[in-house]
Amino acid sequence: MDYQKILEDIYQEILPFADKGAQADYIPALAKVNPDQFGIAIKTTFGEAYSYMQAQTRFSIQSISKVFALAMALSLEGEDLWKIVGKEPSGTAFNSLIQLEVEKGKPRNPFINAGAIVIADMLMSRLEDPDAEFLKFIRELSGSEDVGYNLEVAESEREKGYLNAAIINLLKHHGRIQNDIENVLMFYFRMCSVEMSCEELAQAFLAFTNYRPFDFAGYRLSSSKIKRLNAVMQTCGFYDEAGEFTYLVGLPGKSGVGGGIVAVHPAHYSVAVWSPRLNSKGNSVMGMKALELLTTYTQESIF
Amino acid sequence: MDYQKILEDIYQEILPFADKGAQADYIPALAKVNPDQFGIAIKTTFGEAYSYMQAQTRFSIQSISKVFALAMALSLEGEDLWKIVGKEPSGTAFNSLIQLEVEKGKPRNPFINAGAIVIADMLMSRLEDPDAEFLKFIRELSGSEDVGYNLEVAESEREKGYLNAAIINLLKHHGRIQNDIENVLMFYFRMCSVEMSCEELAQAFLAFTNYRPFDFAGYRLSSSKIKRLNAVMQTCGFYDEAGEFTYLVGLPGKSGVGGGIVAVHPAHYSVAVWSPRLNSKGNSVMGMKALELLTTYTQESIF
Amino acid sequence: MDYQKILEDIYQEILPFADKGAQADYIPALAKVNPDQFGIAIKTTFGEAYSYMQAQTRFSIQSISKVFALAMALSLEGEDLWKIVGKEPSGTAFNSLIQLEVEKGKPRNPFINAGAIVIADMLMSRLEDPDAEFLKFIRELSGSEDVGYNLEVAESEREKGYLNAAIINLLKHHGRIQNDIENVLMFYFRMCSVEMSCEELAQAFLAFTNYRPFDFAGYRLSSSKIKRLNAVMQTCGFYDEAGEFTYLVGLPGKSGVGGGIVAVHPAHYSVAVWSPRLNSKGNSVMGMKALELLTTYTQESIF
Amino acid sequence: MDYQKILEDIYQEILPFADKGAQADYIPALAKVNPDQFGIAIKTTFGEAYSYMQAQTRFSIQSISKVFALAMALSLEGEDLWKIVGKEPSGTAFNSLIQLEVEKGKPRNPFINAGAIVIADMLMSRLEDPDAEFLKFIRELSGSEDVGYNLEVAESEREKGYLNAAIINLLKHHGRIQNDIENVLMFYFRMCSVEMSCEELAQAFLAFTNYRPFDFAGYRLSSSKIKRLNAVMQTCGFYDEAGEFTYLVGLPGKSGVGGGIVAVHPAHYSVAVWSPRLNSKGNSVMGMKALELLTTYTQESIF
Repeated sequence: MDYQKILEDIYQEILPFADKGAQADYIPALAKVNPDQFGIAIKTTFGEAYSYMQAQTRFSIQSISKVFALAMALSLEGEDLWKIVGKEPSGTAFNSLIQLEVEKGKPRNPFINAGAIVIADMLMSRLEDPDAEFLKFIRELSGSEDVGYNLEVAESEREKGYLNAAIINLLKHHGRIQNDIENVLMFYFRMCSVEMSCEELAQAFLAFTNYRPFDFAGYRLSSSKIKRLNAVMQTCGFYDEAGEFTYLVGLPGKSGVGGGIVAVHPAHYSVAVWSPRLNSKGNSVMGMKALELLTTYTQESIF
Repeated sequence: MDYQKILEDIYQEILPFADKGAQADYIPALAKVNPDQFGIAIKTTFGEAYSYMQAQTRFSIQSISKVFALAMALSLEGEDLWKIVGKEPSGTAFNSLIQLEVEKGKPRNPFINAGAIVIADMLMSRLEDPDAEFLKFIRELSGSEDVGYNLEVAESEREKGYLNAAIINLLKHHGRIQNDIENVLMFYFRMCSVEMSCEELAQAFLAFTNYRPFDFAGYRLSSSKIKRLNAVMQTCGFYDEAGEFTYLVGLPGKSGVGGGIVAVHPAHYSVAVWSPRLNSKGNSVMGMKALELLTTYTQESIF
Repeated sequence: MDYQKILEDIYQEILPFADKGAQADYIPALAKVNPDQFGIAIKTTFGEAYSYMQAQTRFSIQSISKVFALAMALSLEGEDLWKIVGKEPSGTAFNSLIQLEVEKGKPRNPFINAGAIVIADMLMSRLEDPDAEFLKFIRELSGSEDVGYNLEVAESEREKGYLNAAIINLLKHHGRIQNDIENVLMFYFRMCSVEMSCEELAQAFLAFTNYRPFDFAGYRLSSSKIKRLNAVMQTCGFYDEAGEFTYLVGLPGKSGVGGGIVAVHPAHYSVAVWSPRLNSKGNSVMGMKALELLTTYTQESIF
Repeated sequence: MDYQKILEDIYQEILPFADKGAQADYIPALAKVNPDQFGIAIKTTFGEAYSYMQAQTRFSIQSISKVFALAMALSLEGEDLWKIVGKEPSGTAFNSLIQLEVEKGKPRNPFINAGAIVIADMLMSRLEDPDAEFLKFIRELSGSEDVGYNLEVAESEREKGYLNAAIINLLKHHGRIQNDIENVLMFYFRMCSVEMSCEELAQAFLAFTNYRPFDFAGYRLSSSKIKRLNAVMQTCGFYDEAGEFTYLVGLPGKSGVGGGIVAVHPAHYSVAVWSPRLNSKGNSVMGMKALELLTTYTQESIF
């Protein structure tokens, strides 16, 4: 399939949406990004690579980091992980406290903030140097040795992060956090602050296509576990737009408020797309459109 | 792949769960079914058929009928359908009124009761003889000319159906029902009362594998629409256990309180399984186990 | 105290609000009432009577009837009544189904619709001819032999009463209704359809000031029970504006969507006011204002 | 009326409840209080004083302090206060985050934790030395110059105060907090940590009977404002047991998890009672019983 041509065609077709939506502006570091950018990259299990436009520009991956954290957590804990976090779609916005209160502090899934914070706490308990381990893991996944945290972004998210502070305090109240809450929050924000390009993200997510045994920086996952991780992305990866994304795109994926979206076609390819302007649900407008067209043109959704 | 052998192995392996769970007993017709039954059937896109145990015994398909109704509705309305019903997982139990009230009567998805009732109402508005049309459609899908309603079951569900009556009245209050609510409810219950065997269900759901152009009794769906219908099953087919089913089985599917579960592996096969005892979420215990083992043994989840 | 003068002064002062708000229009019978009306009447425990403007014009008392039904129910059941209905303010709108679902069908208090419906059901179980008994009771309370139901209003409320039908079906689902739901609903709507004037209502509510032993049509309540009934009016009488009414007026009271409001100053007087235009919470705009001024001018709130 | 005799009789009658309930134990300072204590004190507007048992033993007033803070806030802000906090009963437990999230951070009333925290923040913005001002105010109200904070209690509440930290972070997220959240929390906990005896509380709450113009430490409230403050106590003073307390006792009042309850009979008397064991709603078991009997014996509820 001529993916390169498809990427170029898609870009032409989604241009009318280039000024739709609004970029995240709750911290200066995200607000000052030039919103008129777009990049896309595909890596196939046969070793091919395609990309278009600003596919090498790094951006804040934000919630996409939750997939990496989940992979590490699954590798460390196995099925026991689901004792501390659920795997059901939430039906409410990603930062809702309501469900958390009703369900006594067990987060619905690893991709709402509460779930990712519980996983960050668990990683801190298990690892001697979680910051370094996380970096090592994503560097090996992405094949980029200089991928790293943006500490300025992390600091400024913490400063404005009252909602996440509310969440972690509520989790702690329910006995769900073992470590110092300030340390956990900062680790969580550092993971979100990682900056990667579409090409780097596509490479990193290629690991979730099961193209080769998953073993990165010592973190191993069986083929079956990878399938299950994809399943969680499918049902929970897009907050209260998970159904919409599954419907339109038909691939497991994950988005971030930095405007990035990654998706995986098991056994075939991974794809990363980026454009800063978001729809009302917090997902990249051009990114959603691009992936919808990709699976329409290629007829390659998983369904 | 030797599916026949796999089915037989699976049966041996799930026997320890044969007495786990409890069959639905809210109406006499369901309560009096012998709970010690199990059947499973597979149909492949290559024309092969496999089955084991009581695969020819008919049972009440209940909510599985919602997939057939959705297929008709999508064929009639196209994407306009999503104006009257959503496609997001609900995050709450299948009969919850809370979400409906908060969201002013637009049901979250076509598989919670509220959504299926709205679709029943729409079919009544569009079709001259909805009862006959529905039968014609499922008879052609399943290749069984004598598949039909169990009017006694339908009547007795209506008699005890206070919760569904609450739901349709709330929908009507929000202006979401066009026809007489009593007629809509009865049509809804008739669709749920249809009795089919695993073999008939597997045949009917083979249509959702895209093995041939979808055109049954005049209801046509493009390959893309079929994919999207599967996507809705994936995220919403199992009420508040949708994440669990996707995680364990990794196929789009739908369950019913009669103990049936159907699932689809796009391009490969359809499978129907049945056993009356249900877990606390209303899904067949042996059915869930059987499908989990099936995709584990065959390595054939969609992820 | 010169109540007559006070009533006249109040009227002048609230005239600027005469066109504020909107009358209930969900049924034709309420929509066609001339909204430019106002009446007020006071009866004291010393036997004095004051009134002004259209105090003899009858109007639909609607939810005010719930106080009469509660009085009958308390007389019949005593403290056992609270096994079937609570006495806590609801914190949500009067017709919310959410609380009902969360709390398994036990209504929060006797003044939300669910609570009044449960009481109507109980009266039907206990009384041979509940329609006649209710009339007898309110006729003796009000001293007006021709007070009666407006069956046209009751019918037309039933016709549009989808929300109340949803409520009673949900109650039935939770095993909270003993009688035929259609009969209970019609009895409930008939009670709501009663028409009385301000003077008649003031006379009827004089009984709740404890000015003489409560014994009407055979329904007896101790002085202590009357106090407790007033307590329930105080905390629950105005839906989600109960706090506001207690704050501004400082008397136990009850409102109806017909535009009527009654209030009681224990040991001193009862007051009824009426004007059809309602605020966004469903309470009469001029009525609220008039009562606020009444207790301000007389310095006679209970606090 | 022989209040002294009544207090003694009440004590005998409630003795069977002396070991019912459980004292608050979430912080060591509260857990180590001897639970087998009981005190009660009455002050009348005629200058009489009655008390019984440990009426001079000081205890942690906890949420009773919210009434004092509200009085200061009302004096400073007048009716503008209701722009930042509501005055409706909450219908949910005192520390629920659900309502706060749904209502975008405006607390339902001044007596749920969120409301009291918003008022603490406002006092910090308005006063130069809020700690000193609060002490001055309650010392003048109670006539006890040595009433003060228990800083050890305050510290240890802060240490375990994850739920309140969640609340204030959520408030801050919604732009409802002006000052540093750590400072506001500590001020809030200090107010809660105040220790007073029943006699001191009865004296302090005598001010809310309107027995003389309210002017303490420069904080003035009109007679009308005092009535309104009582109204808020009536509808919101007992969390989700406000209806029950109004029903059983019939006086405006406020409870604290230290086991204290105060109530006011406007124009007649104030009463304070204390016993550490709490019911499931967080209100003193013996305290509730004692006040119920008090208004039963004296026939002096406000209704």
